[in-house]
Amino acid sequence: MSGNSFGTLFRVMTFGESHGPALGCIIDGCPAGLLLETEDIAAELRRRRPLGGEGASTSRNEEDEPEILSGVFEGRSLGTPIAIIIRNRDQRSQDYDELREVYRPGHADWTWEAKFGRRDHRGGGRSSGRETAGRVAAGAVAKVFLKASNTGIRSWVSSIAGIDIPGPEKPGFDIEETEKNPFRVPRSGYVKEIQEKIESLRASGDSAGGIVTVSVRGLPPGLGAPVFDKVSARLAQAALSLGGCKGVEFGSGFAAASLTGSQNNDTITAGPTDAGAGFMDSGFMDSIERKTKRSAFNTNNAGGSLGGISTGEEILFRAAFKPVASIGKIQKTVDASGRPRELSVKGRHDICIAPRAAPVLEAMTALALADLILLRRADRV
Amino acid sequence: MSGNSFGTLFRVMTFGESHGPALGCIIDGCPAGLLLETEDIAAELRRRRPLGGEGASTSRNEEDEPEILSGVFEGRSLGTPIAIIIRNRDQRSQDYDELREVYRPGHADWTWEAKFGRRDHRGGGRSSGRETAGRVAAGAVAKVFLKASNTGIRSWVSSIAGIDIPGPEKPGFDIEETEKNPFRVPRSGYVKEIQEKIESLRASGDSAGGIVTVSVRGLPPGLGAPVFDKVSARLAQAALSLGGCKGVEFGSGFAAASLTGSQNNDTITAGPTDAGAGFMDSGFMDSIERKTKRSAFNTNNAGGSLGGISTGEEILFRAAFKPVASIGKIQKTVDASGRPRELSVKGRHDICIAPRAAPVLEAMTALALADLILLRRADRV
Amino acid sequence: MSGNSFGTLFRVMTFGESHGPALGCIIDGCPAGLLLETEDIAAELRRRRPLGGEGASTSRNEEDEPEILSGVFEGRSLGTPIAIIIRNRDQRSQDYDELREVYRPGHADWTWEAKFGRRDHRGGGRSSGRETAGRVAAGAVAKVFLKASNTGIRSWVSSIAGIDIPGPEKPGFDIEETEKNPFRVPRSGYVKEIQEKIESLRASGDSAGGIVTVSVRGLPPGLGAPVFDKVSARLAQAALSLGGCKGVEFGSGFAAASLTGSQNNDTITAGPTDAGAGFMDSGFMDSIERKTKRSAFNTNNAGGSLGGISTGEEILFRAAFKPVASIGKIQKTVDASGRPRELSVKGRHDICIAPRAAPVLEAMTALALADLILLRRADRV
Amino acid sequence: MSGNSFGTLFRVMTFGESHGPALGCIIDGCPAGLLLETEDIAAELRRRRPLGGEGASTSRNEEDEPEILSGVFEGRSLGTPIAIIIRNRDQRSQDYDELREVYRPGHADWTWEAKFGRRDHRGGGRSSGRETAGRVAAGAVAKVFLKASNTGIRSWVSSIAGIDIPGPEKPGFDIEETEKNPFRVPRSGYVKEIQEKIESLRASGDSAGGIVTVSVRGLPPGLGAPVFDKVSARLAQAALSLGGCKGVEFGSGFAAASLTGSQNNDTITAGPTDAGAGFMDSGFMDSIERKTKRSAFNTNNAGGSLGGISTGEEILFRAAFKPVASIGKIQKTVDASGRPRELSVKGRHDICIAPRAAPVLEAMTALALADLILLRRADRV
Repeated sequence: MSGNSFGTLFRVMTFGESHGPALGCIIDGCPAGLLLETEDIAAELRRRRPLGGEGASTSRNEEDEPEILSGVFEGRSLGTPIAIIIRNRDQRSQDYDELREVYRPGHADWTWEAKFGRRDHRGGGRSSGRETAGRVAAGAVAKVFLKASNTGIRSWVSSIAGIDIPGPEKPGFDIEETEKNPFRVPRSGYVKEIQEKIESLRASGDSAGGIVTVSVRGLPPGLGAPVFDKVSARLAQAALSLGGCKGVEFGSGFAAASLTGSQNNDTITAGPTDAGAGFMDSGFMDSIERKTKRSAFNTNNAGGSLGGISTGEEILFRAAFKPVASIGKIQKTVDASGRPRELSVKGRHDICIAPRAAPVLEAMTALALADLILLRRADRV
Repeated sequence: MSGNSFGTLFRVMTFGESHGPALGCIIDGCPAGLLLETEDIAAELRRRRPLGGEGASTSRNEEDEPEILSGVFEGRSLGTPIAIIIRNRDQRSQDYDELREVYRPGHADWTWEAKFGRRDHRGGGRSSGRETAGRVAAGAVAKVFLKASNTGIRSWVSSIAGIDIPGPEKPGFDIEETEKNPFRVPRSGYVKEIQEKIESLRASGDSAGGIVTVSVRGLPPGLGAPVFDKVSARLAQAALSLGGCKGVEFGSGFAAASLTGSQNNDTITAGPTDAGAGFMDSGFMDSIERKTKRSAFNTNNAGGSLGGISTGEEILFRAAFKPVASIGKIQKTVDASGRPRELSVKGRHDICIAPRAAPVLEAMTALALADLILLRRADRV
Repeated sequence: MSGNSFGTLFRVMTFGESHGPALGCIIDGCPAGLLLETEDIAAELRRRRPLGGEGASTSRNEEDEPEILSGVFEGRSLGTPIAIIIRNRDQRSQDYDELREVYRPGHADWTWEAKFGRRDHRGGGRSSGRETAGRVAAGAVAKVFLKASNTGIRSWVSSIAGIDIPGPEKPGFDIEETEKNPFRVPRSGYVKEIQEKIESLRASGDSAGGIVTVSVRGLPPGLGAPVFDKVSARLAQAALSLGGCKGVEFGSGFAAASLTGSQNNDTITAGPTDAGAGFMDSGFMDSIERKTKRSAFNTNNAGGSLGGISTGEEILFRAAFKPVASIGKIQKTVDASGRPRELSVKGRHDICIAPRAAPVLEAMTALALADLILLRRADRV
Repeated sequence: MSGNSFGTLFRVMTFGESHGPALGCIIDGCPAGLLLETEDIAAELRRRRPLGGEGASTSRNEEDEPEILSGVFEGRSLGTPIAIIIRNRDQRSQDYDELREVYRPGHADWTWEAKFGRRDHRGGGRSSGRETAGRVAAGAVAKVFLKASNTGIRSWVSSIAGIDIPGPEKPGFDIEETEKNPFRVPRSGYVKEIQEKIESLRASGDSAGGIVTVSVRGLPPGLGAPVFDKVSARLAQAALSLGGCKGVEFGSGFAAASLTGSQNNDTITAGPTDAGAGFMDSGFMDSIERKTKRSAFNTNNAGGSLGGISTGEEILFRAAFKPVASIGKIQKTVDASGRPRELSVKGRHDICIAPRAAPVLEAMTALALADLILLRRADRV
């Protein structure tokens, strides 16, 4: 079975195992004429790296240098496939020798064996979080394309290890703070508490879950399609395609199930326009604080789409991540011959994946939306 | 833009507007040799109908008679496309004249206009809930295919109008009860309370949201793919493709974000097998109560998939639906010329969509899984 | 296996067996706003019918009345799927009882059994020429879309039963003549000779092959893609997807294999433009005779595309059809139990399929090009 | 626009420009467990290289070293994407400086500019024959997969520069000879005549066309689908996707247009089986000479498929290639500003592409058939 492609017109195919020679992607369908530099990709790959510093949620160290192999000529996209590779380094494959024969609870080891009858046991093979490097590289190109359309994507960790961080509706929210602390939370006041919680989990050989919120601003109305390819349906697939993602909700989300129609409907103040609520002109915080250029709705419980089609309002969704499955605590499992085993997973592992999942979610969001933007061009005669 | 197809090998394309001549689907890729009768489809369409009785959450009346136009010969599928149509009847198109010029809050009227520059205003056109008849017809065929593989899908309303109904983990759960009461709740003891709540909302011109839980039992391990086509990602797209669906979660879901790895990991007791945990042999309630033939895991926080690949355990997910957007209460909006209007939506409307969404969710689940079962055949040399 | 869909953005799925209740199609992706009437489709279906008159190459009589079930509202396309059905009538299913057990040489009976293990033996089931009614209905919509872009498709029989009919390069070519004689040849002077040849074959229980030439004029440059989706590659698939088609060639075609580069290259007289060589403004014969608005090339050995991308010149290709497989002459074959049998195929059959294949080839060409026109919109930032 | 992907289940995406850093492919969907070595790919890439020796049809020299970046572990495919790259070397980019502003007749320069508004002028960019390296690498993997199914593909040049070479129906045909002479003709007796013709064309600054015949033996019956995805339709797209290919024909091909049904029908001697006519067990020449294990037909005018579905007989088709467009002779053209120019194309060029197109055609054939073999698995319940 395949399943390594995403998108229809802005289409990406990714490849690569955690401990193979390289990872990467081909983007087939990036329109010609886009200004693109290797640094656009390198910058996003750096954002995907473990965030350093005291109490960071991981202690791995990866330096990813992307190489563009095709599709760009004299600084602009050619309209041909853009291939990007990232060599794997710093592989301590021997760390994984024990795992050749044992199935780690919470990982894909068991299911992989059931599916393919074989697996690359080193670091989870293709089911490693490392797989996302190819997505982030592709998403970086999609982001450049979106930016050229005045659309911006930001994300933040809104819950980690049981600690909830309030969103922009409360004063003190600072999106730039997410790039400064190792947990990608938008409020510096929470960092210390999180740090202590993470350290305590590490000490006890345990791990934590978290929630990431994604915000898209500046997206025009009219994207998505009425039935299977709703904006929200495409983004839901995108989000759930991340390892460890167990749920997603848009706008008022699960809370909407307890609301009434008169509470949840967003009333309308203007007819359809072509423009999305502003983002790039003013910056993310500005666009939140001033709610400038709100397109046509008084509220946004819909989270940016109605009937699967974008409204021009902020696309807003939350994705839940389970606690990291690799833990030091001893767990019961079996080996390849079916014999009971006790396992304590060793090696360098994240304690919580949410901070590193954030840029990957952004990448997937960018890929999904770039595709919908191109598909939108075929809507009318 | 297209977006009316779903699936790769077991592929469906649906069509039809609420007040056009007919709705329906073509299924391209149903394997040859499947025993199939019109009644298989009619039965699922009846489950999709408004559930009658005092305090039912809708008062519309639709009789849907499917006609199979192709793909079945002498009682078995031919391997060719199976086309099914359902004629529209009982259309009171004049009910909708006012809506030609006015955008209903919470509906796709505004976004549709932004996207296509025109729309069929009668009953929401293709963005009507009626669109799902085509999906349910297709899903009925997928269900027959799954049943032949010993896989069964059931669903129930687990929350409605703010009232939560406990699941099978508490005694008194009865899946057959969902076919008997108008709210599809699995516990008769909750019906009266819900009835009163729904009636009270109807009286005040308001509506309610709800949550549907879907359970798949008997599914073999090995379905889905490690990256973009995870079982959960495909099902998430399937769920979010329903009108009014605002969120989905698998297994421990959003709650997993607050758990630790040692709490959330499912420990393993046996090596990979080909069989799913039993369902069809014993019936749904039996399979829950006795947990017979549990394949290999002590618990199922994963909700039936690890690394995007099915484990053979129960696939379990919850989908949240927003309150019905059509309400009698007066709402602020604008008309096509941008002038402010006040609107009270008239006509026959559901108060809560969750009970009728349940069989549609089952249909989408069946379509997604039938496709993954066929794709699975290409996994190994 | 599926294989009943064609196209990416302007995407069609067809269905229907020769003697089932109905045939038809869904077009998913026709842009919104296209003026469309049932008569547009009915007219093309009439062109697909057996052409009457003395010595016509078939004696079947089919009246096909298309019904549009969705996707059109108040005379214009909605942007939603356009479903069209055509009921089967005049079915003499009992004519085919003998064929339940016997494999007709030259038909798909044997291969169908090998593939699916079962088949609808009545009239060839889905492998009947009747299947093309769904394609023609879909192609009719594509033709309306192309016409709105000033692009026109015409075709003629350029060889039938061994008799070659000269093309427009010789005086006396009249495209309108193809709608007047039963062989769709563009020169009335050849009709009598063909008639006699066809009658003679009919009398001896035999059949004939033929070649159809397709011409597309007014198509803009820039369609198609450099690698797998070359205009010619897509059209080749389109042509070879017709039953009985055994070959296709573009421009100088097979003859190019014996030419030199200096003979075959088309020299260039002007830089790239957006417009195709004129067609609709002047009519097909005018555009051939005056060669008005020739875009940029002195000759057109390329047949309208270079490197897989349209040049704006006439797209010109020829498709070869084998003789009709159903013949009265006795042939050796076997039955389902493998026993040798002698078979004389009875019933109403075409003697040569080329005249009726012509409008189907046009339909497939229209579908392929409509898709490429929409895909073209995503070429540049 | 995209168009750089091919296949549904055995799916390849290729990338790379003639003078960019690298070319290559990702194969998504190669089943797990296939024995695969880098040498399998390197060997096919060597076959694609210019064939040396006196009078070879090209004088370029390319050494292609493939690197497998993913999808293979401990010598077997993992079921994950197999990425392969080939670095570009020996690039004399300055050779092409003149072409930055001038459109070469017969090349994609002009159409590329019309489509994308920009192009990589160096060696034709992605429209270079060099692009096929990625296809050949992917096709090599498909060939290994086919070989494991006992299916073999061979090809030969059957016409070059106007000289026709008889096929296996005449004594003296030797398939191994195609690997020994620079023109890939299967009869050594023709080499001298061809050599002289090619040398004479080279001397006069001209070029030649040719025809390649492809033979597939051992393929089981039942591949392909009855409508758009006929075996022949898929192979036709595959063949016409090669640069310079202007036509394709299957079995009796264009000649069938002049035959009668009784001449062209292949009579049947046995019922459907699962096995294809033997190839790998006996070798290609053996299977031709002895016609061992002929499945069920007396002749093979069909060229291996009926109704689009494989018969188990030899798949046989011919593809016509136009003369190489790059010629030394002076040709009229224009430059980017539309001014008339005279151009003599310099650099190292093939005189006839057919010999080097042969292994690429094999690769495309292998890719198309590997896909159909996997799709075949979903045919029956």
